Amino acid sequence: MISIVIIGSGNVATQLAKTFNDVNEISLLQVIGRNKNSLKSLSKFTETTSSFSKIKEASIYIIAVSDDAITEVSEKLPFNNRLVVHTSGSVSIQQLSKKNHRGVFYPLQTFTKNKVIQFKNIPICIEAEHKKDQQTLETLGKSISEKVTFISSKERELIHLAAVFVNNFVNHLYHIGNNIVNQQNISFDLLKPLILETANKIINSEPMSVQTGPAKRNDTQTIEKQLHLLKNTHYKDIYKLLTQSIFNEFSTKNKSNE
Amino acid sequence: MISIVIIGSGNVATQLAKTFNDVNEISLLQVIGRNKNSLKSLSKFTETTSSFSKIKEASIYIIAVSDDAITEVSEKLPFNNRLVVHTSGSVSIQQLSKKNHRGVFYPLQTFTKNKVIQFKNIPICIEAEHKKDQQTLETLGKSISEKVTFISSKERELIHLAAVFVNNFVNHLYHIGNNIVNQQNISFDLLKPLILETANKIINSEPMSVQTGPAKRNDTQTIEKQLHLLKNTHYKDIYKLLTQSIFNEFSTKNKSNE
Repeated sequence: MISIVIIGSGNVATQLAKTFNDVNEISLLQVIGRNKNSLKSLSKFTETTSSFSKIKEASIYIIAVSDDAITEVSEKLPFNNRLVVHTSGSVSIQQLSKKNHRGVFYPLQTFTKNKVIQFKNIPICIEAEHKKDQQTLETLGKSISEKVTFISSKERELIHLAAVFVNNFVNHLYHIGNNIVNQQNISFDLLKPLILETANKIINSEPMSVQTGPAKRNDTQTIEKQLHLLKNTHYKDIYKLLTQSIFNEFSTKNKSNE
Repeated sequence: MISIVIIGSGNVATQLAKTFNDVNEISLLQVIGRNKNSLKSLSKFTETTSSFSKIKEASIYIIAVSDDAITEVSEKLPFNNRLVVHTSGSVSIQQLSKKNHRGVFYPLQTFTKNKVIQFKNIPICIEAEHKKDQQTLETLGKSISEKVTFISSKERELIHLAAVFVNNFVNHLYHIGNNIVNQQNISFDLLKPLILETANKIINSEPMSVQTGPAKRNDTQTIEKQLHLLKNTHYKDIYKLLTQSIFNEFSTKNKSNE
């Protein structure tokens, strides 16, 4: 049986604690964190503490804290030669303290407070320096997800960068869309079926093959009209740059087909 | 019984023809188009022709052609004082010929060839100059969708602009994400659960309230590292501008909360 201790009490730590708590093959021994309120809600599932000196012996220690605290927390652990992993997309395995066996357990998903996530279809990117640790992390991953993949720190950097585009930046474009329709008190609800269909389309198609719109068609009349409608200069700049970028991709594509 | 003639044989025309063909209360009399291949596949459902002189008498004529052809097609119709609508998000009702009653029947969705669309949840934005025509279009809309809304040309302009952000631009960001992971032969499939969750999140939340990522946290270390990873200068510019825009929204928000 794999036993785990989770360090952290934010979104990722909480989701992992709740999920592992329901898995028979995994024993969640403890959650360690500073935020007393978050620990309180977790104390329904398992033992909680704020003190590193009370940390239990476990097969795997999962550090799920903010990126810039990972190194410091890994150095504070009062033991050596055990398996310690972090859960971050953008932090290298090297940033964990050398005194323990190092690894990464990165669930590729966006977590929101109070929304329970089903891990079954979430890709879990794992990495470890030793073969045996890789196997342990694979078993841990497979206990909650059908999509466990070995990913190096270098690959993970690119995945996290791509995730910023398809998640953080996309969400900001939703926000801009929301602002644009709200100007005239039009409900953002009108756009939701379009947003879902746009996301669903790329499940079975390359994004470039389903690109539509004025930029792709180089429909300069519509582009000029829409730029004129945009009063916010930041939004205007974003419109221009993305329009240019779509136009470039398609004009390059046409040239390479000639 | 409302009878209709559809003019056009592209994605929107084809989807509408197939959908109205299944509705008992609507009689699809004819599809008129230039593309013989597309007409051939539609001839299973209804009469097709390429000749405007053979156009039948109907309650509504639906012009579903490319934006820049709408005016010309509306002028070519060999009759007066009938109800003629277009299906475009970005074209004003005024661009239809004055010789007929004018209207708009705009399904707010992205259409792909060979993918059948369920209209039931698609918002249909309608507009007409006469009360009676509004009612006719409302009946037509409600025969296929539960979400029929009266929208003026001015409002529709903004909706279409917002749609460019949440559909065309978002899809381009998916394409960039795809390119980034493909550099290292990492499968784009890894990102798909994240893409779907990002879209699903805004069904019940304001986009701004679920924004995450380095730009929101002003995590300059991650931002610098990611900019360094991006080799494509266009993508670098997009990264910088969207990061700046997210940062601006949150610093403005924080200031207004002070």
